[in-house]
Amino acid sequence: MQLSKYIRKYIEAKKIRKVFMLSGTGSIYLDDAFSKSKKLSYICARHEAAAVMMANATSKLTGNVGVVIATTGPGGTNAIGGLAESWVDSVPILVISGQTFSYQISNKARSFGLQGFNIIDNVKKITKYSAIINDPQKIKYHLDKAFYYASEGRPGPVWLDIPMDIQAAEVKPNLLRGFKKKDKIKKNKASKYKKLSSLLNNSKNPVILYGQGIRLSKSVNEFRKFIRNLNIPSICTRMGLDILKYNDSNFFGLAGIRGHKFSQKIIKKADLLLTIGTSIPHTVIGKDLNNLNKNVQIISNDVDLNELNKKNLIKPKILFNEDCKTFLTTARKFLKKTKNDKWSNWINYCKQLKNNFPTLDKKLIKNPINSYYLVECLNILSKNNAIFINDAGSSNYASSQGLKIKGDQREITSGAFYSMGVAVPMSVGAAAAYDNKRQAIVVTGDGSIELNIQELRTISLSNFNIKIFVINNGGYASIRKSQDDIMSGGHYIDDTSVLNFENIAKAFKIKYLKIDNYRNLKTKIKSVLNKKTPYLIEVICDDKQKIIETV
Amino acid sequence: MQLSKYIRKYIEAKKIRKVFMLSGTGSIYLDDAFSKSKKLSYICARHEAAAVMMANATSKLTGNVGVVIATTGPGGTNAIGGLAESWVDSVPILVISGQTFSYQISNKARSFGLQGFNIIDNVKKITKYSAIINDPQKIKYHLDKAFYYASEGRPGPVWLDIPMDIQAAEVKPNLLRGFKKKDKIKKNKASKYKKLSSLLNNSKNPVILYGQGIRLSKSVNEFRKFIRNLNIPSICTRMGLDILKYNDSNFFGLAGIRGHKFSQKIIKKADLLLTIGTSIPHTVIGKDLNNLNKNVQIISNDVDLNELNKKNLIKPKILFNEDCKTFLTTARKFLKKTKNDKWSNWINYCKQLKNNFPTLDKKLIKNPINSYYLVECLNILSKNNAIFINDAGSSNYASSQGLKIKGDQREITSGAFYSMGVAVPMSVGAAAAYDNKRQAIVVTGDGSIELNIQELRTISLSNFNIKIFVINNGGYASIRKSQDDIMSGGHYIDDTSVLNFENIAKAFKIKYLKIDNYRNLKTKIKSVLNKKTPYLIEVICDDKQKIIETV
Repeated sequence: MQLSKYIRKYIEAKKIRKVFMLSGTGSIYLDDAFSKSKKLSYICARHEAAAVMMANATSKLTGNVGVVIATTGPGGTNAIGGLAESWVDSVPILVISGQTFSYQISNKARSFGLQGFNIIDNVKKITKYSAIINDPQKIKYHLDKAFYYASEGRPGPVWLDIPMDIQAAEVKPNLLRGFKKKDKIKKNKASKYKKLSSLLNNSKNPVILYGQGIRLSKSVNEFRKFIRNLNIPSICTRMGLDILKYNDSNFFGLAGIRGHKFSQKIIKKADLLLTIGTSIPHTVIGKDLNNLNKNVQIISNDVDLNELNKKNLIKPKILFNEDCKTFLTTARKFLKKTKNDKWSNWINYCKQLKNNFPTLDKKLIKNPINSYYLVECLNILSKNNAIFINDAGSSNYASSQGLKIKGDQREITSGAFYSMGVAVPMSVGAAAAYDNKRQAIVVTGDGSIELNIQELRTISLSNFNIKIFVINNGGYASIRKSQDDIMSGGHYIDDTSVLNFENIAKAFKIKYLKIDNYRNLKTKIKSVLNKKTPYLIEVICDDKQKIIETV
Repeated sequence: MQLSKYIRKYIEAKKIRKVFMLSGTGSIYLDDAFSKSKKLSYICARHEAAAVMMANATSKLTGNVGVVIATTGPGGTNAIGGLAESWVDSVPILVISGQTFSYQISNKARSFGLQGFNIIDNVKKITKYSAIINDPQKIKYHLDKAFYYASEGRPGPVWLDIPMDIQAAEVKPNLLRGFKKKDKIKKNKASKYKKLSSLLNNSKNPVILYGQGIRLSKSVNEFRKFIRNLNIPSICTRMGLDILKYNDSNFFGLAGIRGHKFSQKIIKKADLLLTIGTSIPHTVIGKDLNNLNKNVQIISNDVDLNELNKKNLIKPKILFNEDCKTFLTTARKFLKKTKNDKWSNWINYCKQLKNNFPTLDKKLIKNPINSYYLVECLNILSKNNAIFINDAGSSNYASSQGLKIKGDQREITSGAFYSMGVAVPMSVGAAAAYDNKRQAIVVTGDGSIELNIQELRTISLSNFNIKIFVINNGGYASIRKSQDDIMSGGHYIDDTSVLNFENIAKAFKIKYLKIDNYRNLKTKIKSVLNKKTPYLIEVICDDKQKIIETV
């Protein structure tokens, strides 16, 4: 069997049903093999970084490894922008790149052969495993290893680079040797858990701060049980936004300067902070720990010691370096005597705060349209299984602060980097992940959308049920805000002036709708959400609107 | 003085008049300082990779270092795609990136602070120097070092990463210490030059193969004198295309499978190949050296030993590892007795070949428009100081094979990588390099243009004299050709269907012209070249047109 076909069959067996690619001469055997699959389908992106962002979205939503095929040279280096994104957001992605012929490879030279480039040396620092395949008979070994490391511990991207001659080589699947490694299950001592139990039981105002580690370790259900049993107020960090519904009785919003006001008020009162599957962002604790209670005790669980050892963060009293699933199931045993109503006064107090500090002030429902009101309308009108994809900048804050997750809704974004421009390609991956059966709702800005605007064509060609809401607020609103805050103000260093989005839609062959009045916002949103084809909806918003800050 | 302002003054003193940026919170002091310059101006790109490509073009044209300012996190990682391009093409680029506050930096963590990322570790392999500035008092040292290494030996990109607090720190310019290193001038022994002289004088059919090393070492004039004195047929590699005019009596075209037919015929006959400032591409020698004369002797000059030591390339008889300027001036002394008419029969024979094998067969002047005819018309109608910027794919071959450099014309492209999508951003850098005083003519394809299409807005905002000719041939023509050649054919793995370019132009606010008939090609080209504003010209070409191959 041709090696390229073997790889495809291996990936099919992993139940991966979508691959993302930009075809090229240097990956021609791979492209050909994958394009002839009956089990999986391929989506052609218009830029390799965008292809990785698509795979990133698919992986974030399904938990499975996202797969990208890129060609040699610029195919690989273009992908790096997307790869870094998956690295910081802990997304398991496999990039398979084509390489020039083996006999032409000269790794010390800057380039070689036709578009040849030593890509592996250049992605080492942002992949969990990377290798060039020199021996076709080792392909199973490298694939096993790549898949193992992509998901083991803190997940992340992996990369295999395959020269033209190796892509075309023959292998006998039965004779190929694999790679096996037993997961070392790190388990902390009972004494640590006893200490956790004692500190928690002595706490008056405990708070759980949780993040996407819960989803990455596939323990969303364990987590829900855990907080339900203890009945402790739980606050998420950015990538944990869709783990609990907004109206969950234990959900108390998003932490951080640009999270929910009530969340930071609760954190400020907490005498114990138990963090699960998240790092503690600087924006949560504030400079000099200003946002925390002076007497707070921190107990932290994180699979990545590098996160726990970060500089200038508050040091936890107890530190569990194990994955969330192990932590949650073990901790539950040690805490089973703790009664469910132990903190009922505290949680009632928190509920009052949640009611008293809604994100959307009714005064903001007016013209020009406020982006928080836009998100409020999307909350109300979206289906219970919708997927929200949010971009960076002011549109991200409108969503992260305004979005109220309901039903099985999911929300994905660039969590660590807040990268402008990820939302359009991610929406392709999101729609593909569910075979276009769940509507993808993008909230992006007139600045952010530019960075991967070419993928609008991928959307129109796929005809996916993707609705792109573009907040037109006259350019980089979030950067303008920084320029106002940090510098003297009024001197804006961006050369944006907004695109003609009606023509953008026409050019990329997507339907267009403009909304410029809050009075018909709901009716117009309703009309597009009821349709199945892609739509670009330009929402003319207040260009002087401020981002709500919580502290 | 604020450190950011000091950097700006340093760069102004290097006679750099344009910087390229995408503003962000993490580089806010740098952005602010540069935006307030009276000596240089800034151009805002819509993607950081594109900003690097703009700086790349400026540097390729002026020989000076190209400067880019990017923000932290995705600002830096987005830039890597462009950076790799400058690395393989030997372009001196300085990227200055913003970084989160020093106290937040935790280099072992995947990310930190607000969008913090260890960018330096990730660009080490594709920069000649890179450093994070921890001590404001060392800024001159690092700038000196960055500028030194950018241009020393084989040029390439350098990178300085500057945390927020350091950007804003105060420095006293007079007290800053610098960096100084004497260039080690590698000079080969006289015996080597004597051997060169003897081999050359004994050769019947010598050929000089030259590349952009000549321009990088700023020895275009020395080179012209050198070949004029010896009167030897000279053939360029891809990035040397604009060093000699097409009608120069010593110019015999472009080497390679997709170069000029007469050039490969001349190379096949050469008994001596003297290479100056170029590597020897695989496409020139062919597999198993099929494209060379069996008895050919190679003499090579290259400043980069890694190029000379590449695998499976023919080993040179004599190897000069020194820069072109040193080589040319020394070699000229040793060859001064060689008479100017020594190879006049040989050169006359080559002239016949050049006349007998023109790229454009007259039969191709018909409908649908052939892209070689488009380039022929551009040859005739362009001004003597025009700058051509060519993209990858079939449009690149039409240009590299069809272009006839005249006057002071320049031509730039992605030389080593043939990266799709570089031409639009490079045209901005090209126009900026000459303050919009020389017309920039882009030849790109309907596939390539998509990758950096967002920069069309940068073009319309700048209002530069840039004419973008888009060859509409129904998608990735060059990749389709590979799929036909290598695979069974007819099974095309690309999901392109061409954009509506008229609406693209409208959306990005650029004027549009469509050409679909060879009969009015010249008239229409003439009309747009006479205008000063940006134009997007869609040329409907033959989608079945073949790329001319020389062997």
